[in-house]
Parts: sequence; structure tokens; C-alpha cells
Amino acid sequence: MGILKRRLVKAGLTMDNSQFTMPVSLGNVEISDKFWSPFMERVRTEVIPYQWQALNDKVEGAEPSFCIRNFKVAAMMTHPELDYGFDKAIGFGGMVFQDSDLAKWIEAAAYSLVWRPDPVLEKETDDTIDIICSAQQPDGYLDTYYIIKGLDKRFSNLKDNHELYCLGHFTEAAVAYFEATGKRKMMDAFIRYIDCVDRHIGKEEGKLHGYPGHEILELALVRLYDVTKDEKHLKLARYFIDQRGQSPLYFEEETKRNGNEFYWKDSYVKYQYYQAGKPVRDQHIAEGHAVRAVYLYSGMADIARLTGDDTLIKSCSDLWENITQKQMYITGGIGQSAYGEAFSYDYDLPNDTVYAETCASIGLAFFARRMLSIAPKGSFADVLETALYNGIISGMSLDGKSFFYVNPLEVIPEANEKDRIRRHVKGVRQKWFACACCPPNLARIISSLGSYIYSVKDNALYTHLFIGSTAKAQLSGKEVTVKLETSYPWEEKVRVDFQVPGEGAKFDYAFRLPGWCRSCSVELNGAKADYKKADGYAIISREWKSGDSLSIVFDMPVNFVEANPKVRENSGKLAITRGPVVYCLEEVDNGKELFKIHADLENGKPHNLKTAWEKDLLSGIVTLSFTGKKEKDWPSDALYRPVAPAALEDKLIKCIPYYAWTNRNPGEMTVWMNK
Amino acid sequence: MGILKRRLVKAGLTMDNSQFTMPVSLGNVEISDKFWSPFMERVRTEVIPYQWQALNDKVEGAEPSFCIRNFKVAAMMTHPELDYGFDKAIGFGGMVFQDSDLAKWIEAAAYSLVWRPDPVLEKETDDTIDIICSAQQPDGYLDTYYIIKGLDKRFSNLKDNHELYCLGHFTEAAVAYFEATGKRKMMDAFIRYIDCVDRHIGKEEGKLHGYPGHEILELALVRLYDVTKDEKHLKLARYFIDQRGQSPLYFEEETKRNGNEFYWKDSYVKYQYYQAGKPVRDQHIAEGHAVRAVYLYSGMADIARLTGDDTLIKSCSDLWENITQKQMYITGGIGQSAYGEAFSYDYDLPNDTVYAETCASIGLAFFARRMLSIAPKGSFADVLETALYNGIISGMSLDGKSFFYVNPLEVIPEANEKDRIRRHVKGVRQKWFACACCPPNLARIISSLGSYIYSVKDNALYTHLFIGSTAKAQLSGKEVTVKLETSYPWEEKVRVDFQVPGEGAKFDYAFRLPGWCRSCSVELNGAKADYKKADGYAIISREWKSGDSLSIVFDMPVNFVEANPKVRENSGKLAITRGPVVYCLEEVDNGKELFKIHADLENGKPHNLKTAWEKDLLSGIVTLSFTGKKEKDWPSDALYRPVAPAALEDKLIKCIPYYAWTNRNPGEMTVWMNK
Repeated sequence: MGILKRRLVKAGLTMDNSQFTMPVSLGNVEISDKFWSPFMERVRTEVIPYQWQALNDKVEGAEPSFCIRNFKVAAMMTHPELDYGFDKAIGFGGMVFQDSDLAKWIEAAAYSLVWRPDPVLEKETDDTIDIICSAQQPDGYLDTYYIIKGLDKRFSNLKDNHELYCLGHFTEAAVAYFEATGKRKMMDAFIRYIDCVDRHIGKEEGKLHGYPGHEILELALVRLYDVTKDEKHLKLARYFIDQRGQSPLYFEEETKRNGNEFYWKDSYVKYQYYQAGKPVRDQHIAEGHAVRAVYLYSGMADIARLTGDDTLIKSCSDLWENITQKQMYITGGIGQSAYGEAFSYDYDLPNDTVYAETCASIGLAFFARRMLSIAPKGSFADVLETALYNGIISGMSLDGKSFFYVNPLEVIPEANEKDRIRRHVKGVRQKWFACACCPPNLARIISSLGSYIYSVKDNALYTHLFIGSTAKAQLSGKEVTVKLETSYPWEEKVRVDFQVPGEGAKFDYAFRLPGWCRSCSVELNGAKADYKKADGYAIISREWKSGDSLSIVFDMPVNFVEANPKVRENSGKLAITRGPVVYCLEEVDNGKELFKIHADLENGKPHNLKTAWEKDLLSGIVTLSFTGKKEKDWPSDALYRPVAPAALEDKLIKCIPYYAWTNRNPGEMTVWMNK
Repeated sequence: MGILKRRLVKAGLTMDNSQFTMPVSLGNVEISDKFWSPFMERVRTEVIPYQWQALNDKVEGAEPSFCIRNFKVAAMMTHPELDYGFDKAIGFGGMVFQDSDLAKWIEAAAYSLVWRPDPVLEKETDDTIDIICSAQQPDGYLDTYYIIKGLDKRFSNLKDNHELYCLGHFTEAAVAYFEATGKRKMMDAFIRYIDCVDRHIGKEEGKLHGYPGHEILELALVRLYDVTKDEKHLKLARYFIDQRGQSPLYFEEETKRNGNEFYWKDSYVKYQYYQAGKPVRDQHIAEGHAVRAVYLYSGMADIARLTGDDTLIKSCSDLWENITQKQMYITGGIGQSAYGEAFSYDYDLPNDTVYAETCASIGLAFFARRMLSIAPKGSFADVLETALYNGIISGMSLDGKSFFYVNPLEVIPEANEKDRIRRHVKGVRQKWFACACCPPNLARIISSLGSYIYSVKDNALYTHLFIGSTAKAQLSGKEVTVKLETSYPWEEKVRVDFQVPGEGAKFDYAFRLPGWCRSCSVELNGAKADYKKADGYAIISREWKSGDSLSIVFDMPVNFVEANPKVRENSGKLAITRGPVVYCLEEVDNGKELFKIHADLENGKPHNLKTAWEKDLLSGIVTLSFTGKKEKDWPSDALYRPVAPAALEDKLIKCIPYYAWTNRNPGEMTVWMNK
């Protein structure tokens, strides 16, 4: 424990990190995976360049973003000598949180540069950072909306105007870019902005006792603290967590002060839309805007870990349990209600009117990763895996060119068109969004996937996800290299090869036993391996040597899954999974009226179940097929009749992975089918 | 056939009514029924007086209606000598269609006066009619919104500003009041207003080629024509029907002319919200605002009957089939979507996000009655009966003091509170509404129920509904009296006694064979009666004499009903009916989580089914009970698990009539339960 840490622990500010499970960083993991590498490449070659065009208002036929233009306008206002070839009087364009789009782009670009250096992309980023920094005010302030529209109003509407949200994204981006390139310019600029915020907002008298209306700065400050080890960054994050929802409610006071309308006044959720209706330590049920919520909970988990605050850990655990055991779709989707893009209530999981924003599943992955850092429990990584293989990547088309905001589990195109309550649900992914949060969020999580795979705790290396990769980690004072090879999630085998300098090293190697897997076999150097199980992980303790090779086979049958009977919407239904992959039925394979199909299991098994690797279908997938039943049409046109035995006919059912749906002909889709 | 009729038929304007089934009018039917008389009394003693207070802004704690005040203001503007004790500068209050509330009240009062003379009520009505008439403009115009706000704008926004809607309601009220009292003052006033409309709106050059934005005037003009036999009333009705939806779309032109926003421009339904997107003869699927729709279809059926227009009859038949076989709840509720209070699409019948406005079911009853006038088919009367015993009277509490706008078939209070898409669904009836259409609409249909029971066609007397009553009808030139006695819908027996002057008369007596009834026995004077079946009616042709007595027993078992498998929302579910009454489960009888209950039928029958007359429960109802099953909670908190046999426990299930729900402790309710 270094001097700084000792001091912080003493001050009650932070715990010794070594008792936690810290991720192996992106720079130490190189991914080479049949499943994920193509996604990463598509992000690198499609999403990041497309977004760059969008940020620069160069996408033909699309609404301009104004994002980079806003920074140029702000820079010209700050430095009159600057000339970007247009008049600064052009003003601000886009949403109040438009700045954040650029931050997310820089963050994604930074991650991409880690695993695929690209001088052109780095130069573009550097040039953009120069523009950003030119817009910075003498006191450090750096939000173009208020620089352009009038600094006198800054910090006056923390509830809705997203200044601290944009700052949060920029802080994450700045740290990512520093870690990727070693360049500090952007990070230093945002440290100055954070100092400015710190002078205006805080618990001390004379400061505004506010906090972010859209959370993310909390977790971003912790991330910054991980790099700077500057106590004030941690303190500010902790202040935001501690102050949130304290009485009198800051947002209520602010609304009164501004004479604003309070948008959520008629909703049951009120200030809990912002998770700001009560102190966070009194929050045990996930409520309000789902993305805001999981960003906050991630920050809470960070602070809980660093400060060892039991009540905060309790809240995080309770919120985790509430989400994953009462409010999470089987795909890892969260946020059931389109109104407020929000959680609704326990066991309310409508499949068709769902919101399940891509960003919310991404935020859930953030939360999972931070819970893993508090304690390595397989259940955290199970959810992380579920979100990644399902509700997150369903947000992007296989060609990387179109995106979902909303990820439904059941779609009937006519319903989406004709019933207003499903209007937010789209049957095909869209090119881009006015509020473009999901595509860049996808870009940043997929580009940084390397940092989600491994962790180190004490002298143990944990593998949470089975993604082909080579990782380096310090164990027993040596740099150990593990190489993981697999065709997961399609195949059951995972091979791990070890390289240990010198004579070898004693450490624990732990790998997750997936929650979906009921048995697995483990061989070490060709012989059955001994391992102990702990919290969902298999742990092998030994002296590891170069050339050691672990061969794991996860029994990966097709699983037929049912929902808790408290979930009204899934009554009498089942879903199908194989490994971490959730399957669905599409109209293109199964015809219309999917709701008339029955799986027709016998002793828990379907008839004639087949799995097939189809390499040319949907970029290569394992499909499932079996013989089920379909209800025949009635002989009459009647709408109602006395109950009679159902007339069923055999029906060959074909299922594809949920994430790959609507990459062919659009049509009906369902994850849940009649039993 | 009289001279007038002959002339009209010759001009292609109207057919001989004698080939149609015309209702026995309210004045010739006296109801004395154990089920319905209390409803009628509650309307007479609660609803009509309460509404009178509301119209006069005398309900404490309620928003003022301004309705009668508007007429007084308009009258003072028209006749400066008038003084109602306040300043006319007070202006217009309430909704643009506020006038119609008064019209509906007068109509209900008129019907009530027919079967229960009441000098006080008649005096109030006469005085009110004096005020209304005082507001009439020299050219006949009579809509307080424009009289007060500026006559220069009248007829400029037919699409949304409800002038012709208000006129329609006043026309119905005026005819009803004339028929009830013989007093013409109000009818004459509105005939003058109709003349004014006729001068401004019509197909001739120089007139506005418009039509009502909210239909009802069409059917009201036919009703007026039935009294006046003035061809121009029929012609104007027919013009409105013929012109509606003709290209160029009048509402589109009007919107452009006014530079208005078109509220429905982003919906799939667009001008079909008003059933005005295409000519009515091209309309074969019910679309748009449900109340507007069935009011229009009623008017279309009237015109179709009177003009013998085959294409119009075809549209009416198709629309009827579409509604009743593809878009109607088992309760007779229509309008599935809260957005637009509208039809959505075939087989879309969500039980919990439903709209099913009380007024829409009332409008469906209007439509049914008019289809019955075209041809006496039992299926029309089946729907009329279904709506009356279920989706209409569910709109009123048993004490007549609170009302539903929306009539859900499944309610989970937490969902209504926390999920915005169910916010329009209430778990308890409300005192009154800002847009108070449903309570007075209930008042007028229940008060005029007598006119829905019997029809005469040629020399046949039809009984559509089994409601205790005495009716007089002209048959074979004699005034025949039938007296119907029954404890329907609770008991199976119906007795009909005949009084025929002199030696008797030869005519057909037809009574409906209800669609829900699979067998019935019919005795005439104690011996099995012969009858022939035609279109859902049993017809007995004979020489009827005084003292003839018919005894009918409808086999009235408890029916377990399923929905067409195309109805996604009812997959795997059943509903329970007995006679015309649809049953439901309430939390107060069955506990929470009704969706976990299974009926557990064996060979189509439940275990231990019992029916019981409970005279002290909910004003006296037949309850059903049987032993079903309920899913047990899982032993774990898991949200998902591999499919396993359901753990079920026996559950005593109690059902009450749907119309009577939420008259005790509010809570969950469902009509459809798991099979």
C-alpha cells in the first residue's frame, strides 16, 4: 500500500484497492475472437468514421449535428483571433447535451487506438481536442451550450440542462485518450473544468448544493481519480453521491427558483426520474430513467468500493438484485416503460411496449463490471455476458450502419404502426438519431471490450468472459500471459494457454462457471483438473508454468426457459437460450402470427431439436430448429366461441440469435413463445 | 304508402319503410323489469338531477360546466333586454362542444318524462329551452361558442370545432322532447338552425362542401325527418353521408385555409380519425375515433335503409362485420386504442391498455338498432344485448354516482399508476369528467331503453331483448298488447302474455333466439309451441287471442368462451359468460395476481361449478364459483429458470358480472383468465 492510499484509507476516503477485483486494462488485452473481432472492426471501420462525418455535419440527408461547429463557435467567442471560416453569430445548434456526442466519439476513438493504432484517426482527435480546448473559459468552464448562449445562466438548471453530464462524458473520454496515447492536454483541460465545478458546486456554504441531472460524472470522476490519485476528484464524486436526494430536494428548489414547469410532476416517479427523490442510501428499488439509474449505480458502486461504505454497498446490492431479479428482460434489456425511458415496477416486463434502450443495457454492463470489482461473483458476470451477447449488440445492425434505441422482445409491425403505445418500437434499425446516444455508446463499449474480460484480485487472475484474447497481468510479481482461444458462444470449448517468465509462478487462475451451464469438464495439460468452486467461479491454485494449457468444455445444450409466474406477460410462455445467446423467432423463417406457435415440449424437450452452424447466414450463427405446433385458423370468422380443444398442426420452427434479428426481411419477431 | 313516401321513393330518396323493422316507440313501451328498472330509476333520481346541478355550475368541488351560463351569455348578447344577473362580458366557458352536454341532458330528461311524468323536471326543461331559444340568431344560427366568440368564424373549422356535432345532439333532443311532450318550440328552433346550416353547407356552388368533424347530425337529421317528413332534412343527411371523404378532402383544404396544425398528421389513421379520409362507400374497416365511427355508421345505416342504397348497405354490413368479428371486446366494448380513442386493427384486443369508451358501446348499440331496422337478424340484437348488459352499464356505478369513460377488461392498479400506457385506465369510477360525454350518454340510452326492445315489420312483432315490459303495437289493424315478464338475465324463463282486441288477430310473433343459447323450450298456453327459425329469431305465426301466453325457457348454462387464436392477447385464455352477462374475477374475491389463476377445465367443464343468486351482493347478482388452480410462487427469487412443471394449488374462484366490478374494494380485475 503506497503512501497516498494509506493516507486516504486513514481519512476514511478510500480502501485499499488490492482487496478488490480490478479489471486488466484495455492496453494489456488483445482480442482475437471469431465472434467479437468482426463487431470491433465494424465499429472501427463503420461506426467511428460515420459518427465523425455526423459530428462534422457531413452526412448527406441527415439533420446536422452542429456538435463540432458548436465548439468552433465557442472557441471563436473565447479567442477572437480564431477563424474557422464562418461567423460565430451562427449560434448554438442541436440538443442541450450535444457536446456529449463528441466526447463519446473521442472515447471510442481512444479505445480503438489502443488496439489498432491509426495516425489519421489520432491526428483528427488531436485537432479536435485543440478546438475543444480553445473553447475553454479562463476559469476552466467548458460547455458550449452556455458559452454560446450566455455564461450567466450556467449551473442554473442542473436538473435538465446536462452540463455535468457532458462533463462526465468528457472526463471519461479524456482519461481514455490519456491512457491510449499518453497525451494529457484534454485531461488537463477537463481537470481545470472540474476545478471550476468544484468551486461552484459542493456542500460548503456559498456553493450550489446540486448534483448532475443526468448521472455519469460520478463514475467518471472515480475513473479520473484512478489516474490522478488526486483526492479532490474522489471527494467531488462522493459529494455528488452523498448529496443526491437530500432534503430539501435540490431539483425542487431549482425548479422553484427558475419558475420552470416540472415535467414529471404528474408521474408517480417524480424526482425519482432522476434518482433524486431520496438519498441514494435509501434507494433499494431501481426507479426512473434507466440509463441515468445504472450510470448512478455504477458511480455508487465505485464509491462504495473505494470507501468501503457498507450502507452504500447494501444499496448497490439491493438495486442490483432488484434489477436482475425483478426488472430485467432475459436479453439483459432494462427500462420497461417508454414514458421516461424508465423502470416501471417489479415483474412488469411487457415484451412489445418495452423500451430496453441499448444504452441502458450498456449501463447495466458498467454496473455489472463495478459490482465485479467489489466482489467476483459469477452472477455479476452472467448479467454482463447476457447484456453483451443480446440486448447490447441487438442495438446495431450486422453491417454496423444502423441502430436501435429500443430493443423489443416481440414485434408485430402492424401494431407498431397502428397502436400508438408501440410507436417507439421500430421493426428495423434506424440510420442515426437526433438524440444520438446509442450508436456512440455501442462504439465505446465494443471498442473497450478488452477491459471487461479479465480481472486481478490479490494473486488471482479471473476470466469473466470467454472471448478469444491474449492478456498480460502481474501475478506473483511476474508478468503472466494467458491466451484464450474459443469459438464461444457457438462452441463449448475454451482453451487457455499460459506463459510465465522463468520457472513459473504460484497464483490462482479463476474462470467463471456460467449460470446457464449445468456441467463442464476441465482438463489441465490433458488430465482432469482439480478446481474449487467459489461464487460462480472455478479456481485452480497452483504453480503455473509456461506451456500449461487448460481445456474447458461447457455443456451447452439448448435451454428452454420460463419466467417467474409473477411476470404476467410471460405466463404460459418459454424462451430459448443456448449458452449466453437468447434466441428468437422471426417471420422470415416462421411465417406470420408467431403468437399462434407452440413449442410443444415433451418432458421438457422439443421434438426433433437440431442445432446447425450456418456460416453464411447473418454473418455466421448457430440456428436452432425443432418441430412445434401452430394453431390452425378457426373454420368460422367468429371472434368468440365456446372453449374447444385447439386444432394444432405440426410446424417446423427455426430460431436465430436475438441480436441478429431484423437483418433480413423485417417482420414479426418474438423471444417468448407459447409453451 | 302515402303520397309523400311514394314521391320520395320515386325520387330515389327513400324506400317504403314498411319493408323495414321499425322500433316500437318509447311511448308505447312501459318497462317493469327487476334488472333494468333500478338502473332507470337511478338515472332518473341520480344522474339527471346531478347533471342538472353540473350544467348550472352548482356541484361543489367540481369544475364549473359553464354550459347553461354560455347560453345565458349568448342570449344576453342577442337580446340586450335580458338580464340573468351577471355580465355577458364574462365570455364563453368550457370546451368547444360544451353546448352538447345540455342537449344530452334534455334528451335524457325527455325520455324520462315519457315513462315517468314529472312537472318539475318538465318546467326546468321548458325554462331551459326558453334560454336556448333566446340565444338563437336572426338567421337561425345557434351555437354559443361562436355566438360569444365571434360569428365571423362560424363554420370555419368543421373538422374540430363541433358546431355540427352540437347541432346533432340538439336535434335529437328536440325531437325527443317533442315526442315526449308534444311541445314544438325547441324543434322549430333547431329546424331554423338546420335551415341556416343548409344555406351555408352543401354541394351547391358557393356553399362550403363540408360535413361534421364529429358525426351525429346525420342520424339526428333522419330522426327529425321521421317526424317532419320534410325531404330537405333527409337530403341534408344524405349530403353529409355522400360528401364525406370525397376528394379533395374538405378537412385537408380547411386545415390549409386556416393554417392549422393537423393533429393526426403523424398517425397512420390521418383523416380516417374522422372517417373522412375516403368516401364512406369505400369504407369497409372500422377506423378512427370509435364514437365518431359508430355514430357515422348509424347515420349511414339510416340513409341506407331509407334510400335502399345497396353500396351503402354493403359498407354498413362490412363495417358491422369488421367491428363485431374482428375488433369488439367480448363485453361489447370497442375502440382498442387510447390514442385517438380509436379502433386500431383487426384482432388487436388488448385487455389492459384498452380504451372501450362507454360512449362507443352506446354508439354500437345505436348502430345495432339501425342494422336491425334494415333487417331483423339475431346477430345484430345479440351485440346490442352484449353491449347493454356489459360494456355500457359497466360505465356507471351501481349507485349512479360515478362513471367510467374507459372500460378495461384487465386491471392491475400498480400498472395503471406506474405505466404511462395504462394511465387512462382507472381502477375506480370517477365522479364526473371535464369532457362529460359518457354520463349523459348513459342517461339517454338507459332512459330510452323501452324503444330498443320491440320492432314491427310488416305484420310481425319482434322481441329483441328480454326486458320485463308492456308494449302496444299495431298489428292487423289492431292495437295488440304484449306483456313480457322475466327475471332475465339471472333466470332462464320469459313469459309473454297477449291482449288482442275483439276476436283476435293474425300476426307473427318473433322473439330472438340468443346467440349464447344452444337450446330453448317454448310453450304456448301450456303446450309445446311450433315455431320456425329465421335469422336468429323464432317466429310463431297464428291467430293470436287475448289470454294467449307464451312461456320460453332459454337454456342458460355457464359458458366458457375462448377468443379466435388471431387475438394475441387472449392466447391460452378463456372468459366466462352466463346468458348475456360476461363475468370477471376481482381481487376482493380472489386475491392478488389474478393472472396466476387457471380455470383448470376438464372436458370443457370446471370443477365444482356453482351458481348462486346473491340478493344482497352488488344490488343482487348471480355469482359463479368453481375450483380452479393458482400457480404457486417459486421457491427461489429467480426471474428465469429452465422450464419445469408448474406447481399449482387448488383455488376457489369466484366470479361476478363484469358490469358490477369495482363497486366494492378496488383492486385487480380480469375478464380473461388462463384456461
